[in-house]
Amino acid sequence: MLDDTPSTDIPTFDDVLAAHERIKPHINRTPVLRSDYLDRLTGAELFFKCENFQEAGAFKVRGACNAVFGLSDDMAKIGVATHSSGNHALSLSYAAGRRGIPCTVVMPHSAPQAKKDQVRYYGGEIVECEPSTSSREATFAEVVAKSGAEFVHPYNDPRVIAGQGTCSLEFNEQVEDLEMMVAPIGGGGMISGTCLTLSNRAPHIKIIAAEPKNADDAYRSFKAGHIIADDAPQTIADGLKVPLKENTWHFVSNFVTDIMTATEEEIIDAMKLTWKRLRIVMEPSCAVPLAVILKNKDAFAGKRVGVIVTGGNVDLDKLPWLSN
Amino acid sequence: MLDDTPSTDIPTFDDVLAAHERIKPHINRTPVLRSDYLDRLTGAELFFKCENFQEAGAFKVRGACNAVFGLSDDMAKIGVATHSSGNHALSLSYAAGRRGIPCTVVMPHSAPQAKKDQVRYYGGEIVECEPSTSSREATFAEVVAKSGAEFVHPYNDPRVIAGQGTCSLEFNEQVEDLEMMVAPIGGGGMISGTCLTLSNRAPHIKIIAAEPKNADDAYRSFKAGHIIADDAPQTIADGLKVPLKENTWHFVSNFVTDIMTATEEEIIDAMKLTWKRLRIVMEPSCAVPLAVILKNKDAFAGKRVGVIVTGGNVDLDKLPWLSN
Repeated sequence: MLDDTPSTDIPTFDDVLAAHERIKPHINRTPVLRSDYLDRLTGAELFFKCENFQEAGAFKVRGACNAVFGLSDDMAKIGVATHSSGNHALSLSYAAGRRGIPCTVVMPHSAPQAKKDQVRYYGGEIVECEPSTSSREATFAEVVAKSGAEFVHPYNDPRVIAGQGTCSLEFNEQVEDLEMMVAPIGGGGMISGTCLTLSNRAPHIKIIAAEPKNADDAYRSFKAGHIIADDAPQTIADGLKVPLKENTWHFVSNFVTDIMTATEEEIIDAMKLTWKRLRIVMEPSCAVPLAVILKNKDAFAGKRVGVIVTGGNVDLDKLPWLSN
Repeated sequence: MLDDTPSTDIPTFDDVLAAHERIKPHINRTPVLRSDYLDRLTGAELFFKCENFQEAGAFKVRGACNAVFGLSDDMAKIGVATHSSGNHALSLSYAAGRRGIPCTVVMPHSAPQAKKDQVRYYGGEIVECEPSTSSREATFAEVVAKSGAEFVHPYNDPRVIAGQGTCSLEFNEQVEDLEMMVAPIGGGGMISGTCLTLSNRAPHIKIIAAEPKNADDAYRSFKAGHIIADDAPQTIADGLKVPLKENTWHFVSNFVTDIMTATEEEIIDAMKLTWKRLRIVMEPSCAVPLAVILKNKDAFAGKRVGVIVTGGNVDLDKLPWLSN
């Protein structure tokens, strides 16, 4: 069954707790970093949860490991498959590699070389497609028809959403009294997991989704009250080009406080600023939260704000502030 | 009294314990990161202590804070001064800024712009000199004669060595059963603090100093049995150009197991590899340990190895693998 078929597979908080135990041996409990400089600049107390320090470089190992290690042995041996703009692809390959099962991923040929290399390093097989949602889904249908592999959607899968929810579970244990949580939004997997966990554990925390203005379909969906999907938006935040689906829309429409957007220039500035001040390597997508905080200081000033740094798989030969 | 006068100011382990309490409010207990990829590549179990995540971006805040916060109020109000290739300069400025006292630093005009900017951000005043040890010391003598400020040497000062020793104290608490410890060596401040702490707390741990081949005066000193100092060696590892002095030589000659060197190309390769796999921003100096581990795999294979990542103040517009 492909992901454009409506689904009622909404994961529960018990699924998050089960995922937390299941994936523990396969993921890092990532550290939370702070910067006096960024606190002074924004007027907020910022806490950065560094999911870029996962072995495969992104929070997506959480959802991928939950899906892969939750399969029965019979299902697992046929293998898993997915389509992804990058980090889910290599995270699923990483998870499948740890279980020793096959993994096939459909990726746009325009995906960063660093991500393609890493998928292959973990043992995943890549099938390339055009950089549009329509091409990706068509190519993927062929792959699944041929192999019979278990489809693990990058974000609309309830196992994946429950896995991503473990990030906020840890974050909430590591930092007391958070008042706001900001994470990037693309397809909505991380935001949905965040909503699922926080609405159960800390429902007073406001959840802000941060999105590139150039790919603001979630923002427009949020304002319109129904899913609006763009085909192939262009943004430097390559992890955030994909549209919401019914399961992530459920969480976004019910639990997100607001969606804020940032321009390409604001994203690149915030990215370079974070590299300089936090001294971490992270992707453009991860800079969207800081970009929206800098742009909307009044909304965050004086608050204890959690920021989820989602991934760190960057092509170090093509840094955006150097090619501009 | 300038630092070329022989001294018998060798700090004790009690000084390290006192420093640990004194500086706690002013520094970060930095996290330790791991990488399956780098473990597989080297055959060792590597633990990276990320001192680049200190607010001022380097382990040198430890020694600087120990010196500044150990001053009497009368001494403190006149201020502190130093000469430094960069990170000690901004660390001393940071420490002085936190205590609200003046700080003057003599820096080579060739020091990275990012470091100069940060010294000024913390409130330090910069006096520029030529990029040689002789010019630096002459310029500094003038500064001290004029201001009467308390000299805090970047590494030969016992307060500084005791402060740097707190890094291994934390590291040894964070990771059990380390068998080897590798840190870069320039003037020898970090290595001396490491020797001081480990010789008391875990004397079985082998201490390896890692040095650029282009500035291998510590290596040659170690082999010759006396200090050999070069004037103005050229290496990309700009934090490691300075020579040993009598207090650091005491620790190097008595407690270091071996000194290993790496070429400029090996340093740059290891730097890029660490950015890619650990996803941290760190200086070329910090890559020398991984470079020597990769070059001498047999010495480290199968061992639990601590690596001290010393600093992360990089000019992001001038990355060495992009200018080559």
